[in-house]
Amino acid sequence: MSVSEFNIIQRYFRREHAAPGVTLGIGDDAALLMPTPDMTQVVAIDTLVAGRHFPEQTTATDIGHKALAVNLSDLAAMGAQPLWATLALTLPDVNEDWLAGFSEGFFQLAGRFNIALVGGDTTRGPLTITVQVQGQVDASRALRRDAAKPGQHIFVTGTPGDAAYALQQLQAGEPVADELLARLNRPEPRVTFGMALAGVAASAIDVSDGLLADLQHVLDAGACGAQLNVDAVPRSPALQSLDDTTALACQLGGGDDYELCFTADADCVEQVYRAAEDNALPIAEIGIIEPQSGIRCVRDDGSPYSPTVEGFDHFRDTDG
Amino acid sequence: MSVSEFNIIQRYFRREHAAPGVTLGIGDDAALLMPTPDMTQVVAIDTLVAGRHFPEQTTATDIGHKALAVNLSDLAAMGAQPLWATLALTLPDVNEDWLAGFSEGFFQLAGRFNIALVGGDTTRGPLTITVQVQGQVDASRALRRDAAKPGQHIFVTGTPGDAAYALQQLQAGEPVADELLARLNRPEPRVTFGMALAGVAASAIDVSDGLLADLQHVLDAGACGAQLNVDAVPRSPALQSLDDTTALACQLGGGDDYELCFTADADCVEQVYRAAEDNALPIAEIGIIEPQSGIRCVRDDGSPYSPTVEGFDHFRDTDG
Repeated sequence: MSVSEFNIIQRYFRREHAAPGVTLGIGDDAALLMPTPDMTQVVAIDTLVAGRHFPEQTTATDIGHKALAVNLSDLAAMGAQPLWATLALTLPDVNEDWLAGFSEGFFQLAGRFNIALVGGDTTRGPLTITVQVQGQVDASRALRRDAAKPGQHIFVTGTPGDAAYALQQLQAGEPVADELLARLNRPEPRVTFGMALAGVAASAIDVSDGLLADLQHVLDAGACGAQLNVDAVPRSPALQSLDDTTALACQLGGGDDYELCFTADADCVEQVYRAAEDNALPIAEIGIIEPQSGIRCVRDDGSPYSPTVEGFDHFRDTDG
Repeated sequence: MSVSEFNIIQRYFRREHAAPGVTLGIGDDAALLMPTPDMTQVVAIDTLVAGRHFPEQTTATDIGHKALAVNLSDLAAMGAQPLWATLALTLPDVNEDWLAGFSEGFFQLAGRFNIALVGGDTTRGPLTITVQVQGQVDASRALRRDAAKPGQHIFVTGTPGDAAYALQQLQAGEPVADELLARLNRPEPRVTFGMALAGVAASAIDVSDGLLADLQHVLDAGACGAQLNVDAVPRSPALQSLDDTTALACQLGGGDDYELCFTADADCVEQVYRAAEDNALPIAEIGIIEPQSGIRCVRDDGSPYSPTVEGFDHFRDTDG
């Protein structure tokens, strides 16, 4: 039996739960949402296209997770608390197993942060998933890219480059360790840590295009440059088995990790470390913002380093 | 020269203008938006897939218009004032002519209602356009589907069925009059009239699936039924050339007109007509809400009518 569109929504995406601020959720022309007084709304939208943003063999559950995770990551990079999501799902056909898996992955992650799915649209076409998330932040505490200023310390969470290495192995037909594959397929948005950075850090961005490319976006917004110690970028055990050049290419150029790269004034550094400890999230100080534009990569001994990283500016995926 | 993604956004989608409530627009991980105090946020999302929601030969300008129009129509059906939009654009390649046309169509319509594009995502893949719009309404005045109650009068704006007839002609390779084609390709969202209905009408929906199908959605939400006088549904000059059965099939079953179908209590009918007059928008009273579920179609003389309309519940497109 084919599942009608109405039933798709009823069966897989309509979850009744008392979500804060939701006056009217799925089921009308639009959702009615009540913002918290004096809080600024934070809105991000991101699309995943099959074969481009996830390998074709990715499970539906992982796709459901990732479609929400990449958006939550954008809110985290603003220091915002996520509240609501909408989903535009374009499907080649109605596959109930796929829908069950997708919605499971989506709602598992949504449930962890008490996010309500308040609206959506299902259409038929090549598999494309667009999620928009909405959250809130005190505007004066938001982590804006243009807040990057010379003298600020540059940090990164976790171990960037893992997702890129997993993708390389997949594409080469090599076996990929589960833990490494999870870094590609089930990225962990740094939501609670991003919220803890609000009002503490200055600027932030999530690493979706690659550490250098994303840092450059911040520097462009702040009209400044940076010195980056490439040896200070944490390297996961998986990447430690690679030669240094290959490992650094993943760490500096690999996207899809959705770690946070952020800057903080010197007198906030202690608070930053405390927030990381509270969130049990490893962070590393990897450089310093400078007035001169561009990124100057150096090694531990101060010698310059030229990373073998592909062009930063690519069509594939850009947030606005 | 290929246009980089950054340039796509800069060149075609970043328009600086003082939009109300926009603290931070395109260019960061997420937009920062300041809602008006005490107003409820209204959020709708809709996807257009090439060849499914618009014919392949549709111009980029018309696609840009329609992608925003169908979303504004959802806000109109809630009685909401539109404020902000985000755009997720999946493109098979970077075609500057197409982008120029698309953005022209999008911003022409956005400009008419002073709507700011505050964020977006561009990806490569089969042409798919998802727009999310956000607006505001006083929650107590919102036009909710579940406000439909027995005794209310049923209205429709304009002349439904035109877009369906235009599509039929296109698909049959027949010439289509410009005016009729515009009804398919450049639907006019009833934004100002929808806002005028807030607090006056009871329930509303925009006619995207077909008058009967969409009215049924309202009746489902309100747990009631309706009697509908099919002869009272306005018929455009173009449809008057058709035989009665074919014309009624378009009027009752044709989607894509984005007219409003709404209900109002008897003591609000005068106000409804005044709002229509103020907006220079023709409306027609086409039936009455009844306690018994289902839609009973009748003719002017009271005799029953069985419309030849395809199944209402289809996969193609559903709002949540």
